Amino acid sequence: MAEILDFEPLKTNLSAIARDVEGTLDTLLSVPAGGEARVVEAMRYALFAGGKRMRPFLTVAAADLFGVSREASLRAAAAVECVHTYSLVHDDLPAMDDDDLRRGQPTTHKQFDEATAVLAGDALLTFAFEVLSDEATHPDPRVRIGLVSTLARASGHHGMVGGQMIDLRAEAEGLSYGEEQITRLQQMKTGALITAAVEMGAVLGKAGPAAHHALISYARSMGFAFQIADDILDLESSAEALGKATQKDDDAGKATLVNRWGVDKARAHADFLVEQSIDCLAEFGDKARLLKEVALYAVQRKS
Amino acid sequence: MAEILDFEPLKTNLSAIARDVEGTLDTLLSVPAGGEARVVEAMRYALFAGGKRMRPFLTVAAADLFGVSREASLRAAAAVECVHTYSLVHDDLPAMDDDDLRRGQPTTHKQFDEATAVLAGDALLTFAFEVLSDEATHPDPRVRIGLVSTLARASGHHGMVGGQMIDLRAEAEGLSYGEEQITRLQQMKTGALITAAVEMGAVLGKAGPAAHHALISYARSMGFAFQIADDILDLESSAEALGKATQKDDDAGKATLVNRWGVDKARAHADFLVEQSIDCLAEFGDKARLLKEVALYAVQRKS
Repeated sequence: MAEILDFEPLKTNLSAIARDVEGTLDTLLSVPAGGEARVVEAMRYALFAGGKRMRPFLTVAAADLFGVSREASLRAAAAVECVHTYSLVHDDLPAMDDDDLRRGQPTTHKQFDEATAVLAGDALLTFAFEVLSDEATHPDPRVRIGLVSTLARASGHHGMVGGQMIDLRAEAEGLSYGEEQITRLQQMKTGALITAAVEMGAVLGKAGPAAHHALISYARSMGFAFQIADDILDLESSAEALGKATQKDDDAGKATLVNRWGVDKARAHADFLVEQSIDCLAEFGDKARLLKEVALYAVQRKS
Repeated sequence: MAEILDFEPLKTNLSAIARDVEGTLDTLLSVPAGGEARVVEAMRYALFAGGKRMRPFLTVAAADLFGVSREASLRAAAAVECVHTYSLVHDDLPAMDDDDLRRGQPTTHKQFDEATAVLAGDALLTFAFEVLSDEATHPDPRVRIGLVSTLARASGHHGMVGGQMIDLRAEAEGLSYGEEQITRLQQMKTGALITAAVEMGAVLGKAGPAAHHALISYARSMGFAFQIADDILDLESSAEALGKATQKDDDAGKATLVNRWGVDKARAHADFLVEQSIDCLAEFGDKARLLKEVALYAVQRKS
């Protein structure tokens, strides 16, 4: 890696934006008086269970390049976090990854029940599109529909859901995937939403084609590096340190480059991807400092 | 009931539009070559399992009042059917209503598996918004974002998902609901999406406030009548005739007006609602013939 940064300023920014995204979600999603309160409580339980808020951070940081108002970028970021959270709630279900704990806390179906968790996930996904379609997100309908389109394409069967399907099949059928297949799986399962998070910043900023394309390229490389780093952390960390059942991905023989290549080669590839992603930011100069730092942080973080 | 119609012309229209909606879905949702094919196959299995296609019919019939192109209204109708289908797939899951059969065929989680059914539902919901956000649905971004907003508000925790949550809670906790609570539950659980289906026709047609409001009022009354008629059919029909486990809603003591009032009073109320709904169509004259007939059909059908 070319440089080791002091990540404290970035962490301060990450925390500040995470707090603002959480505040936005808190305001947008109040608990109603009727019997449907339970599903909203489950949505809020899942949303406010912590997390780095990396995806919403990327939306806000990308939108900042174009001077987008924070009100707009925080709403778009909140929608991205709703989609990410719904995917975690459904992935944790007994029929899927069957996880009882996430970040040391009971998963949504353990804290509530399975039916409520299915519905909470459904409602979070739907709510993301409700938030984006609201005039308060951006006065220009072209921008709002662009946000919806970007998020929907990344989340559905071409993207996140499709990637999860491939991953489940590989596990169930004991398939051994090659590099190319693993790369495609990861780009769909986690890469697509990370790319969408960045791209939504470009959509909000009405970026020209060159800037738009540069940000997508940045996000693709960075997102993949982030996933490799996550897989390395999963392999290396103890269950206590991360607050979730680790080694699980490895035990199940999941399709990751780390399992295929070993830690050293995987880490070297992640470092290469980060350098590649940072190169894509050249045209933005110092304005892209946060995006650059978060890419370096993605592979150097310890949790 | 004021009049008993010959429903054959309506049924011909219903079938023709159902066929066109299915054709649109078939074109939009092709099976990809990758490992994600399985989730698309499950989406298609659920979508092409039959059904009256009442909701997409309403979208097309409402849009026809304003001379909207069939290409546009069929795409919007296809999105509505995706949301309806996703809700059936998730409602049938073991953790929810636990149904093995729907229309005489294995439910999606029986035909595939539970994880695939969760993902197929997620992907159908997401795909609805992808289709609506595509420029091919309508050239005007204000119309597209209006469609997204209408569908999202009706489907989430304020609408369909919220209604399902209330229904599950009532059943789990053995709550006895009064008329007002049952009405609210039904308006959320099934009424909201039926209303959205009609409203999306108005959005496509850039209806003025009076016409927009009239169509919403029509849909609210008609949708509730449709639900009461459904509950009566569930109670009266044998399992063979409808091809799904009937009496189940009754056995579980579900919150329906039929259970509370008995069949005669419920039927009379459904008839009243249909007359009310037809009154809302006055300003459209003979152009609204299909919407009028489908309201009458909603309560007079035998399946």
